Formats: sequence, structure tokens, C-alpha cells
Amino acid sequence: TVAGEPIRATLFPGDGIGPEIAESVKKVFNAAEVPIDWDEHFVGDQVDPRTQSFITWESLESVRKNGVGLKGPMATPIGKGHRSLNLTLRKELGLYANVRPCYSLPGYKTRYDDVNLVTIRENTEGEYSGLEHQVVRGVVESLKIITRQASIRVAEYAFHYAKTNGRQRVSAIHKANIMRKTDGLFLKCCREVAEKYPEITYEEVIIDNCCMMLVKNPSLFDVLVMPNLYGDIISDLCAGLIGGLGLTPSCNIGEGGICLAEAVHGSAPDIAGKNLANPTALLLSSVMMLRHLQLTDKADRIQNAILKTIAEGKYRTGDLGGTASTTDFTKALCDNL
Amino acid sequence: TVAGEPIRATLFPGDGIGPEIAESVKKVFNAAEVPIDWDEHFVGDQVDPRTQSFITWESLESVRKNGVGLKGPMATPIGKGHRSLNLTLRKELGLYANVRPCYSLPGYKTRYDDVNLVTIRENTEGEYSGLEHQVVRGVVESLKIITRQASIRVAEYAFHYAKTNGRQRVSAIHKANIMRKTDGLFLKCCREVAEKYPEITYEEVIIDNCCMMLVKNPSLFDVLVMPNLYGDIISDLCAGLIGGLGLTPSCNIGEGGICLAEAVHGSAPDIAGKNLANPTALLLSSVMMLRHLQLTDKADRIQNAILKTIAEGKYRTGDLGGTASTTDFTKALCDNL
Ligand SMILES: CC(C)[C@H](C(=O)O)[C@@H](O)C(=O)O
Ligand SMILES: CC(C)[C@H](C(=O)O)[C@@H](O)C(=O)O
Repeated sequence: TVAGEPIRATLFPGDGIGPEIAESVKKVFNAAEVPIDWDEHFVGDQVDPRTQSFITWESLESVRKNGVGLKGPMATPIGKGHRSLNLTLRKELGLYANVRPCYSLPGYKTRYDDVNLVTIRENTEGEYSGLEHQVVRGVVESLKIITRQASIRVAEYAFHYAKTNGRQRVSAIHKANIMRKTDGLFLKCCREVAEKYPEITYEEVIIDNCCMMLVKNPSLFDVLVMPNLYGDIISDLCAGLIGGLGLTPSCNIGEGGICLAEAVHGSAPDIAGKNLANPTALLLSSVMMLRHLQLTDKADRIQNAILKTIAEGKYRTGDLGGTASTTDFTKALCDNL
Repeated sequence: TVAGEPIRATLFPGDGIGPEIAESVKKVFNAAEVPIDWDEHFVGDQVDPRTQSFITWESLESVRKNGVGLKGPMATPIGKGHRSLNLTLRKELGLYANVRPCYSLPGYKTRYDDVNLVTIRENTEGEYSGLEHQVVRGVVESLKIITRQASIRVAEYAFHYAKTNGRQRVSAIHKANIMRKTDGLFLKCCREVAEKYPEITYEEVIIDNCCMMLVKNPSLFDVLVMPNLYGDIISDLCAGLIGGLGLTPSCNIGEGGICLAEAVHGSAPDIAGKNLANPTALLLSSVMMLRHLQLTDKADRIQNAILKTIAEGKYRTGDLGGTASTTDFTKALCDNL
């Protein structure tokens, strides 16, 4: 980007509470004078034949061109003949790593006050292959696919992330005692990459044991890397430890270095349009986008203001036990910038 | 069984700490005058060609004949050409349902004091099919198999269990939004069985959301039923909520009504033979076996003594932060009978 010129970033407000929480991000970015120029895209009202989804081809092109984006919740409309919106984005943009930092928020009490870890989920294959069929009546099978290419790629991302973020240890999560070939290949790739990072401790943890350790003592973990479904499960478990998906940011790293930050919670249709939604997950996700763009000062400033506003506890939305509206919370946050 | 005659039950002490904790069960059963005559079986020191495992054919026959058994931890010896000991028992005895009650132990403090649920895991198929292969170099696949027969069977067990144990609700755990065919068939079977139990509330919960809810508020759940791998993951997560596998009993229900109770923790070779192991999980598992045999008075008496001994807190083993030996704990327990 030309110095001084704003950076163009794609924005998918999404549906349900999406537009309200996206509005909150825009306000905060304005107040913090973040040099971002939003390129807004909406989910279409009919299937785009080029994507087989309600996601339009133009939206995908926008993310590809800008290289960065922010996404609110998207509920896939019910019906046949089209693909899930989230899965379309992952597949079409090659979003191979879903990164979710998860840390206890100062001042927001849960049963845990010692969580500080990052889950890195392979996001394109594994149990999400979509390959399933009926063998005979009453017998069905699904295929879990693990490739060397995708496993090396996500392992490399995880170790690189650990190194550049001052993390000490990477744990590969698996069930290779049962799925010797698939999870075995995943582990083999992790080991290969681990060799190149002697300064990072590498360990392997079986998924059932990992879940038990996470609920007993989450401070045992630092960076976790894992195949798709385990990542789906463990990242939500970890979100639960610190209060839920309304508080946990995420970003997806894709082919060509694309970064699509994303609030992973649902679109909460029951409270949509009522100025009740908690914009925290989307705001913290937007901070991840800013870090990706190396707008570190802006990222720090906004993140500190978010944490401060939550810690003060005066303006909390309903999901956190408070009575503040989305706009109340956003205003308090802007005052804390 | 002839009235007055003791009931024959198979006992696999297992290895590592197995023999010590099995000894504890024998002492407690003697003290409580439980009319059980143990038929002890050991893991062989070479592969039995009839089982392709270190588990002997005679051991399997013993469980089949007696219909009930108790099993300590078994570590599968490393090497090729034989099957996992635990998986051999599951396959050969058709142990289709693994049942794990999980409740907060009075007086033993964890972050949770409101856990009271039961996980029921399909134990024979799913991700444990063992069917895996390399498609081309760098591309491997595993097959997850779901059958109508096994799904109906475990669902029927879950609803029957709920009804006969005064439980109100069964939650089927799945990822049918992604694995539409396999987890879809599992859900279809659960729904069919649910129809026959109008007095039990039936719900379906996606596994990622389930894990988040479990760590936020486990009291939302009652009986959970699920395919093999989800059961493996969630049952260990739940054990973590109340303190770990050293405290959680389990039993396996098999073809022809076999009941094999089992401590699911490891064989802890580091402390084996040192009189340090916690026998609680095996003791509570033996109580499940007694309930299966409808020896309800004995079961209640032993369970109450176990809970009382833990609650008193004077004799706790090292894993629970105490300094009592296995025999100290067992003696205190016998005094509490
Ligand atoms: C909505 C669903 C398809 C999705 C997934 O399973 O990946 C969600 O749980 C997530 O984690 O983003
Ligand atoms: C040891 C292993 C094969 C086993 C499983 O995955 O089923 C264990 O985790 C269990 O839950 O009994």
C-alpha cells in the first residue's frame, strides 16, 4: 500500500446481529483513526452459480484482492443445492489455518483465571472432506482425509506463530493410537516441522487426554495445533473456559497470505436488531486483523480499550450478565481509547 | 444363579497398578460380605492366535460364561502383529455401550460442584473401524462407519438407562451439520428410539457446542449418547470436571447382556507396586457391576463408604493431594462400611 493511503479491507457484516457488531467495529476504528477503508460485501439473496453458494464471486474476489478482511456471523439458509457459507469461504479462499487466541479476560470471572493459549486448527480437510456414502442400507461411511501438504502447511504456520509471538511450546493433538494412518501422518508432519524449531518445545497429546487436562489445568498448554474436527471441538471448549464465543476472536490464514478475521459465534437471530449484541469477539478479531497488517499501535490501543471496558464492568452486554446495549458498550470503549 | 451360591465374576486385575487396586476391591468385597466368587484372568505373555492379542481365548470365554466381570487397566505391549487389549475385549465381547456416570464427589473440591451426568458411548464402530489406507503418497484416509444396527442398539440402551435410573433427558451428541450421512444416521436412530420414550426429553447437541456448554455449565446435561470418538473425548472431558479418571467408574454392556465394569485410567507404571495407587475408579466400577447384578444393598453400602472416606478427607491417595497408601485408604473404607 502507498504510504498515507488507507488500506482496503473486505468487510462481511454477516447476518443476524452481524450488522450491529460490524457497526461497532467501524465506530471504534473511526475513533482510533485506523487507516482502513472498508470494502463492504453482503451475502447474496440467491445462489451464485460460480460459487454454488449465497456467497458471491465478487465477495471472494474482494478478499483475494485486498488480502485482508473481517467477517461477522453468517447463518447458512436452509435448503438444498448450495454450500454452507462458512465452508465456501474456507474452501474457495484456501483458509488453511484457523487461529484462536484464548485468554482469561481480566475482571470477567469464570471458573478459570489462568487461561492463555492459542488453538490452531487445520481448516480445509480431515473430517470435513464432504465425502460420504451409503455402503449398503443401514451402513454409511464418511472419509477423513489427511494430506501431507495441508498438515505441513498448518504445522509450519503453528511453529512460525509460536516463534513470532513469544510462545514456548506447541502441542499436536491427535488420536493416532486409533487412527494410525491419518493422525499418524499429521503427527509425522508436525515432527518434521518441529525439527526446524529447536527453540520451541514440541509435544503430542491424545485428544481425550487433552480435553481432560484442559478442564483440569488449562495453563499446561500454550499453542495447540490439530486436524480440523479436533480443532473445532477444542477451540469451542477453550472458549467455554473464558466465558464463551462472544469473547473469543479468531482469524483464518489463507493461500497467498490472506487473513480473514472472524467472530465465530452465531448470528443470534433472537436478539438481532435489538441493540443487545456483544461486539467483543468481532472487535478482538478486528484487532487480529490489525496485527496481521502490522498496525501494532492501533491494535494495542483498541485491544487495551476493549479489555479495560470489560474489566471496569460498568458497561456489559446481557450475555455477560450486564444491561448495556451494543452502542453503550461501544461508546464506553471509545471513551477508553 | 442358585440362591445362596456365590455369583461367579471374571476379574482382570490388569497390569501396572492393576493388581494393587484389584486387591483393594477384593478386600472391600470380603469386608462387605459380597457373594462374589472371583474367576481371575491375566493378560497372557504371548499372542493367542485365536484372539490375535495377548488376551487369551479362555479369558474371553470366562466373561461370556459368567456374564459379568471387572477389569483393571491394561497397557498394550508395544510391537507389531497383535491387537490392542482394550479393543480386543470390546470387539470380541461385542461391548457396544460404554457407560460412565460422572458426578461431583462430596468433599472433593474441583472447579465444579454441580456435575451429575452419564455419558453413554457407542463402543464398537465409528472412527474406530480400523479401516485406513494411503490413497496416493501423502494422502491418507480413514473410514468412519456408522450402522443402523449399532446406533439403534446404543440409543435403546441410553433411553432404557435413563428411564430405569430416574433420568429426565437424553442428549444425542453429533456433528451432523458436517457429517450428514454418518452422524445423520446416528441421529435418525436416536430419534426413532426417542419416540418410544415420550416421558424422556430428547435433544440433539452439536459436539463443539456441547463441549463449550459442559465447561460452562455441566448441570445442563443429564444422559449423553454419542458415537465412539465423541464418547471417548466427552467422557474424559467430564472426568476432568470432577477430578480425573482416578475417580470415574465405567461399565461396558455387551452382546447377550454381558457387563464388564472397568477402570478407564492408565496402568501408571511409575507408581506400580508402591502401594500409592488410588483404587476409587475400580471400586466405583465394581459397584456398577453389583448394581447390574441387582445386589443393590451391597452396592449402596460400598458406594456410601467410598464417598464417605473421600469426603472425610483424612485418607486420600497422592493423586488427590493426600499421603495415604492404597492399603490405608482401603482400610479406612472398610471401617466406613
Ligand atoms: C458452523 C460449522 C460448520 C462450523 C464448523 O464446524 O467448522 C463452526 O462450528 C465453526 O467452528 O466455525
Ligand atoms: C486406550 C484407547 C484405545 C481408549 C480409546 O480410545 O477408546 C481409551 O482412550 C478409552 O477411552 O478407553
